Amino acid sequence: MPTKKLAESIADFSLDSIPPPVLHEAKRALLNWLGVAIGSHTQPPVQMMLNIATDACAPQAATVIGTSRRVDWFAAAVCNGISSSLYDFDDTHMETIIHPSCPVLPALLAWSECRPMTGGQLLRLFVVGVEVETRIGLYLTKAGHYDKGWHMTGTAGTFGAAAAIGKALGLPGEQMLHTLAIAASQAAGIRGNFGTPTKAIHAGKAAANGMLAALLAANGMTGSEKALEGPCGYGPLCSDSRKTEWLTAPWGEEYQIMRNTYKPYACAVVEFPVIEAALKLRRQGIAPAAIQAIRLRVYRLAIEITGRQAPKNHLKAANSIYHAFAVAFVTGEAGLREHGDAWINHPDVLAVRHKISAVADDSLAIHQAVAVIEAADGRCCRAEVDGTRGGLENPLTDGDLENKFRTLTQDYLNREAQNRVCETVWQMERAADTRTLIGLCAGE
Amino acid sequence: MPTKKLAESIADFSLDSIPPPVLHEAKRALLNWLGVAIGSHTQPPVQMMLNIATDACAPQAATVIGTSRRVDWFAAAVCNGISSSLYDFDDTHMETIIHPSCPVLPALLAWSECRPMTGGQLLRLFVVGVEVETRIGLYLTKAGHYDKGWHMTGTAGTFGAAAAIGKALGLPGEQMLHTLAIAASQAAGIRGNFGTPTKAIHAGKAAANGMLAALLAANGMTGSEKALEGPCGYGPLCSDSRKTEWLTAPWGEEYQIMRNTYKPYACAVVEFPVIEAALKLRRQGIAPAAIQAIRLRVYRLAIEITGRQAPKNHLKAANSIYHAFAVAFVTGEAGLREHGDAWINHPDVLAVRHKISAVADDSLAIHQAVAVIEAADGRCCRAEVDGTRGGLENPLTDGDLENKFRTLTQDYLNREAQNRVCETVWQMERAADTRTLIGLCAGE
Repeated sequence: MPTKKLAESIADFSLDSIPPPVLHEAKRALLNWLGVAIGSHTQPPVQMMLNIATDACAPQAATVIGTSRRVDWFAAAVCNGISSSLYDFDDTHMETIIHPSCPVLPALLAWSECRPMTGGQLLRLFVVGVEVETRIGLYLTKAGHYDKGWHMTGTAGTFGAAAAIGKALGLPGEQMLHTLAIAASQAAGIRGNFGTPTKAIHAGKAAANGMLAALLAANGMTGSEKALEGPCGYGPLCSDSRKTEWLTAPWGEEYQIMRNTYKPYACAVVEFPVIEAALKLRRQGIAPAAIQAIRLRVYRLAIEITGRQAPKNHLKAANSIYHAFAVAFVTGEAGLREHGDAWINHPDVLAVRHKISAVADDSLAIHQAVAVIEAADGRCCRAEVDGTRGGLENPLTDGDLENKFRTLTQDYLNREAQNRVCETVWQMERAADTRTLIGLCAGE
Repeated sequence: MPTKKLAESIADFSLDSIPPPVLHEAKRALLNWLGVAIGSHTQPPVQMMLNIATDACAPQAATVIGTSRRVDWFAAAVCNGISSSLYDFDDTHMETIIHPSCPVLPALLAWSECRPMTGGQLLRLFVVGVEVETRIGLYLTKAGHYDKGWHMTGTAGTFGAAAAIGKALGLPGEQMLHTLAIAASQAAGIRGNFGTPTKAIHAGKAAANGMLAALLAANGMTGSEKALEGPCGYGPLCSDSRKTEWLTAPWGEEYQIMRNTYKPYACAVVEFPVIEAALKLRRQGIAPAAIQAIRLRVYRLAIEITGRQAPKNHLKAANSIYHAFAVAFVTGEAGLREHGDAWINHPDVLAVRHKISAVADDSLAIHQAVAVIEAADGRCCRAEVDGTRGGLENPLTDGDLENKFRTLTQDYLNREAQNRVCETVWQMERAADTRTLIGLCAGE
């Protein structure tokens, strides 16, 4: 465990053991650094950041959604990105596996609190942000970028948030170009942190970093005109199979937000076919005690991302096809509660989970899975899934989305407050000011 | 220019043209997002960020070096990272081409303003930050990471700032591990933005992001235990030739800060051999008018990063071997002023610059160059450079560093203030509180 070894070395290292010549070198570096810092501190790029700090970093600028607590823009964007992506219950653009709302809405909502906008403006800017992040995702390609290990919601999401705020600022083409370039220097997020809360930081930082990119560009900051496609640009660096036509395709013919899908289950999208296979088999009335073995064949990424056989906490359980199948089979549900502590080590779930084996099958797509239950008496039951609830072919209805909202917010909003939020959202074009909605979400 | 085309499409796109079904989809996504955000907003990761916002994002928390102006921690770190790396006059760890001070010192200084520390603590934590960022750079390798297009100061620098603040917080091994993991999800910065001020944002964001990583870990945030070396970890994703031994090597035997070098010239390190070749040839008293042609053979990266034949502004000139050779040949200097507007299009410089051709020579190392001047009368003068001033073999003396500091700060600090800063730095172990130094840098 090399990272662990490094961390231990740093933690164990005695600061007092550093010998005098090393400390002298530190002084040399400090003096050198002070000179260059002082020598450049009046330059425009520093002043641009200072302008932003004065405004965006004001401590009561933007709201943590669900509360009336206000922090600065960037912190609010990070908080709201974390809360909305923490439990994998958000939305998904399947071609890229971008979760489109989590990077864009936190940026726009924070911005709208200091630069009031109507509900109609918010919706339109949101559409633009989603369009940009998904197009950049389609440019980078799922195969060349996400599959290699990048978390698209963090990387492409930065560009989406940047473009949404840039558009809110009314930036012309050249400043929009620099907005994208500055975003390209901040886009980050590794799948290596999946299954931990750090994954949720990706969306939050994408929102905050994208916002910063647009604000810097609006203040005159410039970057490369070929920050995506050029040598050492983000595209060549972070994808080995790019589709440049997605950067240049005309706008307004199709909208990528129309390809957005909403999760009916509180876990990674690659687990959905396994859950529906479990639900199908459950309907056949097989007694758990009669099960000898459960064999799953799944999309390769489902094993890679969610191949955890013994998840230890909520986030690991939300990224475990073993838990997903078992809990859906036992309870008939796969919501937030079913991925929580009450069910992770529940004896009924464990009894099923321990019988599951899963393999990747490269003939299966992301919306497909095959599950076979072998009974003790030798009989087999088989379920094939080819497209799940909530997907483009079988989308959640507006009513489904309202019910999901009500379930999720039941601990925080009473029935009347829920009604008012739903009504405001469905009539969002008529909202004179987004701040009304933000207040309603805190039960105000 | 695909990025440009995308930027123009976004800027030109009419928000009013979005049709109602698309706006309805935006509402569906908004309602779904509000539900998941409200449903998770009381979870610990959101509260961790809120704790940090309350403290670190206080508006008067940390100073922009060179002024008495105070902004929040993160903004101060970004400002000071920008100012210190903007004009390529900082320091360099040659094996990795990390500029070690720019990500680490802004984080530590900002932190030290709210959690007072002695000068000795600052120096020691600085040594730790430099050790971590350079070891991670050595792990990623220059060939496998920087040469591919990543800006090490932004990427590895994030880990350096994170470790320095984590150590300041006294984090034990497990939290230090999560500090590194959270840093791995934020490490960013592409060489595609070199030659623009966005490059300087890399150091600033590395400082701020590293600080955030440590503060989140201190609040209990967790990430992957194999965030560097694991599947989809930062190492495999961003380098194709890793040296894992640098993560696990024992501490305290050697210190990477002892391999730090300080720039005598205000430009990219890959230009230094060209500048010294120009200075050598200049001493031979060749009249510019007598020059027929100038041929340079240089290290490959010198062409890649600084192969600009006609730089248009200071930052481009500071990344142009053509300007570097010409201005050094004409003036005998290559400081901040010689890369500024007064010299970029000076007729004497242009007359030399237009005669230069340069090619990469893979037999040359980063500290080597060959320059040949062909005179109109057919005679040739040749200069070979193998190691430059300021390098490890020929380091700047403490006196050189003082002179560099005085030149850089002459517009902002009087002689007495300069003396006090130098004296304080040389006796930094005895400083009871770093804030004294920060005040002195503002001429207080």
